[in-house]
Amino acid sequence: MSEKVIVKREVLLDQCTKIFVAAGMRQDEAAVVADNLVAADQTGMDSHGVMRVPAYTKRLRDGGTLPHSEIEVVRETPTTAVIDGHNGMGQVVSKFAMEKCIKKAKKCGVAFVAVRGSNHFGMASYFTRMALEHNMIGMCSTSPAAHLLAPTGGVEPILDNNPFSFAIPAGKEYPVVLDMATSVVSRGKLASAAKRGDKIPTTWAMTIDGEPTDDPKLGFDGILLPVGGYKGYGLTVISGVMAAMLSNAALMSRDICDFYVDTDKEQNIGHLFGCIDIQVFCDVDDFKHRMDEMIDEIHNCRKAPGVDRILLPGERSGRTADKNAVEGIPLNETVFKDLNDVAVSYGLQPIQQG
Amino acid sequence: MSEKVIVKREVLLDQCTKIFVAAGMRQDEAAVVADNLVAADQTGMDSHGVMRVPAYTKRLRDGGTLPHSEIEVVRETPTTAVIDGHNGMGQVVSKFAMEKCIKKAKKCGVAFVAVRGSNHFGMASYFTRMALEHNMIGMCSTSPAAHLLAPTGGVEPILDNNPFSFAIPAGKEYPVVLDMATSVVSRGKLASAAKRGDKIPTTWAMTIDGEPTDDPKLGFDGILLPVGGYKGYGLTVISGVMAAMLSNAALMSRDICDFYVDTDKEQNIGHLFGCIDIQVFCDVDDFKHRMDEMIDEIHNCRKAPGVDRILLPGERSGRTADKNAVEGIPLNETVFKDLNDVAVSYGLQPIQQG
Repeated sequence: MSEKVIVKREVLLDQCTKIFVAAGMRQDEAAVVADNLVAADQTGMDSHGVMRVPAYTKRLRDGGTLPHSEIEVVRETPTTAVIDGHNGMGQVVSKFAMEKCIKKAKKCGVAFVAVRGSNHFGMASYFTRMALEHNMIGMCSTSPAAHLLAPTGGVEPILDNNPFSFAIPAGKEYPVVLDMATSVVSRGKLASAAKRGDKIPTTWAMTIDGEPTDDPKLGFDGILLPVGGYKGYGLTVISGVMAAMLSNAALMSRDICDFYVDTDKEQNIGHLFGCIDIQVFCDVDDFKHRMDEMIDEIHNCRKAPGVDRILLPGERSGRTADKNAVEGIPLNETVFKDLNDVAVSYGLQPIQQG
Repeated sequence: MSEKVIVKREVLLDQCTKIFVAAGMRQDEAAVVADNLVAADQTGMDSHGVMRVPAYTKRLRDGGTLPHSEIEVVRETPTTAVIDGHNGMGQVVSKFAMEKCIKKAKKCGVAFVAVRGSNHFGMASYFTRMALEHNMIGMCSTSPAAHLLAPTGGVEPILDNNPFSFAIPAGKEYPVVLDMATSVVSRGKLASAAKRGDKIPTTWAMTIDGEPTDDPKLGFDGILLPVGGYKGYGLTVISGVMAAMLSNAALMSRDICDFYVDTDKEQNIGHLFGCIDIQVFCDVDDFKHRMDEMIDEIHNCRKAPGVDRILLPGERSGRTADKNAVEGIPLNETVFKDLNDVAVSYGLQPIQQG
């Protein structure tokens, strides 16, 4: 485990925004991407945080992702839309799409917005959480457009681990937020482990030849294992189809350019965003009260020996985000150094430690 | 492994319908329940098939489930509805709800229908498959209202394994249909294993005291294990909330009466049904063509040693259903005998073997 560097949220946000502006983005759009990455680090999901800045800026430099694009609404009905991001940054088109989805659900009760021509959008729950303040259930699915998983019975990474997220409001408790990839762990976790120099459990990935491995680098270049075997395989097919098939984004290996390798090629990533307005189904206060009751009952479940507290999905993230808002965001030393190197490469001042 | 008895689909359907009519149901509603159970056996999902007839009829006899109820639409908008089944059979209200959902999606593009006051509805994919012929994606979630799973860190079965299903049309290939519970296996599989006298892997369940077990009876009376650990726990919370929270059905253990034990008490089971009309997003033929391409690519994935064919979710069910439509439906001998015992108890003729 390497050392942690603590950086104030505002400092990190400002630095990332400056970097993306230096990389050619508009100030307002750079701020959107920065906010998304910093939010991931703030919630403890470091695999989707500012450690992505070097790869994002490399893609911007090499032309694989455009620093700005005109977002196009290709099709639209009162409850649905198909949006083409025309290869702009994933966070920018995704925020636009989720805002549109929320507006539609406010009018019509439920809505789905499908996106193509996007790029890596960071942490999926960043977008589903947008629904919470509107007393909606937020849903999303993405196909990260990489070669990651094999189907059950196969030994070739032709599928993605297609993350999906649900965010559900509660009352006084933390909202329930699931944000999961269909692999046992995300590829980002392998990258984090490799950066830290840690070994990985052999349940996380196979080598490209289908052999077990505890080397994160071999796993990263190999085949991730699906969560729960054939059930995780099933989930990844469904999540991928939802994310990419309705919008006609890239899904299968033949279409796909690698995020890290093909940095000069368009990825055409797809997402699906959905919203359900709770008030259309029931009284919102009553819903939240019943959510709190459920959460309370789970907290009070009989605990296994050595367990202090039982957590709901999203509770740890919520607590971590609150803590880090006050205390600052801990970054891995290597991530901190890489971020500063990128800043310096654009002629910006590095963040001073401490 | 006990012997199999082959019964023609029509014979089984007719017999089950007669049994439910004898148990007090209307002819048309009895036929709906029979069709749902027989479809499960036909697709090879025997845990949700006619093996449930003894428990269903016991609940009807003991008053826990009503043979007929007036289905009430409690709230309705063009895209949504909340339906109260008023404790009628789960299949009857669920078919009504999914038909309503399909109609709404046909008009509005997308729709969600939430149900409360329902009962066990059989195989979830029975309902999502209804969307396929309308060129829609079908979605559903249910909370079987039992004490099955513990949250991660807990050793008390306060959660359900809340199954969910997605059905997505393809072209010339079988539709992609996921139908999964959030436990490693469904409780029905433990019941099947117990009926067959088989042992179970220790990854399937714990005893009620949190100890490992290979005894399906102890697992059935104990705590099922979630698929993929904390990810399965997260999935079950989300699926349960989707199924029960919007409609205000029973979800947590305090509300719940056991399907098998409390046969004279209302369960108040909840479901959520959703439909997405594909044509609102893209050309349907093109969508199906792209689905076929994806399926083809998965079929052609490099296979692990000893693997003949890589299957998509729902492909085995589809093939099995087609085969059994011609050859007849194989029933476990014990299930066949139990079904005949129930028939005789209502003064009906048993099915003749062979």
